[in-house]
Amino acid sequence: FVSLLSSAIIVYRLPWTWKCSKLLMKFIHAGLNTIAMILAIVSMVAVFEFHNAKNIPNMYSLHSWIGLTAVIFYSLQLLLGFAVFLLPFAPVHLRVVLMPIHVYSGLTIFATVIATALMGITEKLIFSLKNPAYSASPPEATLVNCLGLLLVIFGSLILWMASRPHWKRPPAENAKILRPIAATPEGTEEESTMTNSSNADKSDLRINTEAARKQNIKFDEAGQRSTM
Amino acid sequence: FVSLLSSAIIVYRLPWTWKCSKLLMKFIHAGLNTIAMILAIVSMVAVFEFHNAKNIPNMYSLHSWIGLTAVIFYSLQLLLGFAVFLLPFAPVHLRVVLMPIHVYSGLTIFATVIATALMGITEKLIFSLKNPAYSASPPEATLVNCLGLLLVIFGSLILWMASRPHWKRPPAENAKILRPIAATPEGTEEESTMTNSSNADKSDLRINTEAARKQNIKFDEAGQRSTM
Repeated sequence: FVSLLSSAIIVYRLPWTWKCSKLLMKFIHAGLNTIAMILAIVSMVAVFEFHNAKNIPNMYSLHSWIGLTAVIFYSLQLLLGFAVFLLPFAPVHLRVVLMPIHVYSGLTIFATVIATALMGITEKLIFSLKNPAYSASPPEATLVNCLGLLLVIFGSLILWMASRPHWKRPPAENAKILRPIAATPEGTEEESTMTNSSNADKSDLRINTEAARKQNIKFDEAGQRSTM
Repeated sequence: FVSLLSSAIIVYRLPWTWKCSKLLMKFIHAGLNTIAMILAIVSMVAVFEFHNAKNIPNMYSLHSWIGLTAVIFYSLQLLLGFAVFLLPFAPVHLRVVLMPIHVYSGLTIFATVIATALMGITEKLIFSLKNPAYSASPPEATLVNCLGLLLVIFGSLILWMASRPHWKRPPAENAKILRPIAATPEGTEEESTMTNSSNADKSDLRINTEAARKQNIKFDEAGQRSTM
């Protein structure tokens, strides 16, 4: 489940997907998330069945509360993503506004899922290891602790990949085709100014990029990615 | 501890601190983190003393493993931040390279600390609630579950605040003073072009911002914040 979520998160960061069309990339992202959602529901049903069969109360632990919250938000995220970014009806303006929220909530849900998994592992180790107990550090405990630590490292790496600006998908090819011919010299000049001034005059660049940054929030983050 | 960490994270996002000098802001950030670090060490010593007094083994649980890892990384983060960003010896180039790593590892440590707290809460509830047990959902269990849920909500809000580009500290006043007079028309023109074109020609803007973005990674993220 976590690996499916991770794959869905980093699909836009993988160079081999940059060769796909943007729509195909979006289908891979939506498809992996849908499979992960189905697995989440199946595993939740399994937990309820297991609890009922063993006469264990349902939904009493913090693990279950946070896990259920994460799954509810995940299904909302999936529905909203499907309606806004995959179906062709949402206006560009709405996509631009919702994209940073979509990205933030996706990553937050991912982190929450890992935290839930860690709580679940803790519970399971305490309940299952009785003789010798968890506190006696039997080999099983050490092994599962290592797996939990690896889960944290894995999650951190995914969040690193997902948050690096230079690992973003390069701008779509059609942006260049759509770009008006009249604007070409302006754009090129701007680009070369940026490059040349990088070692010379940074304070000037700062003012420019400050103005550009506010635009970037709208267009660079979302417009490039969700206008298809 | 978590609230101190949070305050340290969002200090650069609070409008009242924008009136402080950048150096004062950095001192507040470093000071809050130092207090949090001291509290972390005191609480860890308390845990070891408690375990030894009660004959409970130390460092057997996943909670302890991940918690200790987080504290080790946190102390490294603090030392590195002090050496590179607070002391005036590090070259600008090094600060520019290290700032994204500093921001990422700070936020990741914060999320890991929350996950560790949730695991600790889970353990404590299982070990402490015996009659009635945790699974019988006594009022204490419900109360502490709610606190755990609030911790997740609180952490999510802090990560939201810390990751909004438009909540970043505005560029320093001295950037305007230092800026060469010759560069003024260019900068102003650029700024007005960006503003005017926002409704008209987005594809052109995309190319410009794409070039600017790569520069932003270097200068906007780090240069503006760590050159003092």
